[in-house]
Amino acid sequence: MHISGGALPRPAETRIMVVANQKGGVGKTTTTVNLAASLALHGARVLVIDLDPQGNASTALGIDHHAEVPSIYDVLVESKPLADVVQPVRDVEGLFCAPATIDLAGAEIELVSVVARESRLQRAISSYEQPLDYVLIDCPPSLGLLTVNALVAGAEVVIPIQCEYYALEGLGQLLRNVELVRGHLNPRLHVSTILLTMYDGRTRLASQVAEEVRSHFGNEVLRTNIPRSVRISEAPSYGQTVLTYDPGSSGSLSYLEAAREIALRGAIPQQEQHNPEGAQ
Amino acid sequence: MHISGGALPRPAETRIMVVANQKGGVGKTTTTVNLAASLALHGARVLVIDLDPQGNASTALGIDHHAEVPSIYDVLVESKPLADVVQPVRDVEGLFCAPATIDLAGAEIELVSVVARESRLQRAISSYEQPLDYVLIDCPPSLGLLTVNALVAGAEVVIPIQCEYYALEGLGQLLRNVELVRGHLNPRLHVSTILLTMYDGRTRLASQVAEEVRSHFGNEVLRTNIPRSVRISEAPSYGQTVLTYDPGSSGSLSYLEAAREIALRGAIPQQEQHNPEGAQ
Repeated sequence: MHISGGALPRPAETRIMVVANQKGGVGKTTTTVNLAASLALHGARVLVIDLDPQGNASTALGIDHHAEVPSIYDVLVESKPLADVVQPVRDVEGLFCAPATIDLAGAEIELVSVVARESRLQRAISSYEQPLDYVLIDCPPSLGLLTVNALVAGAEVVIPIQCEYYALEGLGQLLRNVELVRGHLNPRLHVSTILLTMYDGRTRLASQVAEEVRSHFGNEVLRTNIPRSVRISEAPSYGQTVLTYDPGSSGSLSYLEAAREIALRGAIPQQEQHNPEGAQ
Repeated sequence: MHISGGALPRPAETRIMVVANQKGGVGKTTTTVNLAASLALHGARVLVIDLDPQGNASTALGIDHHAEVPSIYDVLVESKPLADVVQPVRDVEGLFCAPATIDLAGAEIELVSVVARESRLQRAISSYEQPLDYVLIDCPPSLGLLTVNALVAGAEVVIPIQCEYYALEGLGQLLRNVELVRGHLNPRLHVSTILLTMYDGRTRLASQVAEEVRSHFGNEVLRTNIPRSVRISEAPSYGQTVLTYDPGSSGSLSYLEAAREIALRGAIPQQEQHNPEGAQ
């Protein structure tokens, strides 16, 4: 099946987006695969890089990622070209995935002694010759060398925040890590996008969290919230994104809309990053 | 509520058991907390060390582990004494927990530059003065510095294996890591216990996996299998182990029996480790 979301302007250069939140269960992988599929359905060429050893993004995209499959581990640790591990995603034209296998679980420690250990992913992406509009990187739920590699490779950080108790817990630590990487390794890095997930409009808690997040982050927060949805949760067990699993569902439509916002606003220009008080 | 499992002989010295399997969803945390509770109900004094930043073992034991709670992060990174972070577990006498907070997600990278980075946990446990029969360490699903710290601190590795497709995937890598740590950092380390989880006796697959695991590992595999059980899965959301949540359930009884096996067989003597062909 092929479905389409309608074409949107493509970015002038590849936007590399790091989907990060070291807190588990906030919808990080779900956001990565569904935003990626939405952008592809809007007409873009999109690569998902699965950087979580559990390989849940690969599973959700229907990509085989058992131990013997060439994977992002080979790219990071064995210097294999990224092009050798990228697979097309069935059912969504323009969407590709570099899968993670369980080998990646050892990469955190194997990378410690590797040359240029923080910039292995950045180099691999730079050498990738196929045209891409977006690269979305799904990070593991920790702030180790894998996440650092993603932060060095990317320009934009996308943070999904679950509209639940303790929603902001751990965020300070993530933001400090972004600052550290920006200061030392990657001056282009900035938090470009906050996405509220598992939003239940009927609860007071959800709107309180949304309000708190908007007062903290302002313009970075997308107007679109992702609703709590059974269809979104079910899709991965069928090796699908919600966009192909149930195209008309509220979850599917909300991801298409979030992707449209991301495409239309473009990357926030760099100079504004250093002047958060300025008019945007 | 206090329930009891009947007293068993206590070990001559503290047995430190590392519950590891970098593959997610195999019942690692479930095994840690339920074995620990079972051993405590059998009359032992047991400490669970939660080494996974997601803090699921802490949650399952009903231990508050929000960002401001003193945690194993403070022990590993800030050199706080272990005794300062240990909390008693409600409802199970003799059971204690050193919780994990989301801070721990950054520890993998913070530890890289710390003195004696591999043996921080080992030192902390050595300095702990309360008597303990068992320490069970719940590892994160990766083979980074946190898992290395656990492998340096412990003597026994406990591997839960899910009776499902690809059950043995990733095991080779885990065993190589155990060998590496044994060779360089901790000569006492050995795989003492394999526990088959999510066993469904009605399926051919489960018995095939069980057979394959038993032919690989032999004596290390416990006779008791843990059944696939809704009660085991539900208990954590009530901040409980299955032992207090539903003491009469098959899940509860199987963990009590597995704990009894572990207590009765004792730690496998060291000399047998280097002579796996010898009679045991």
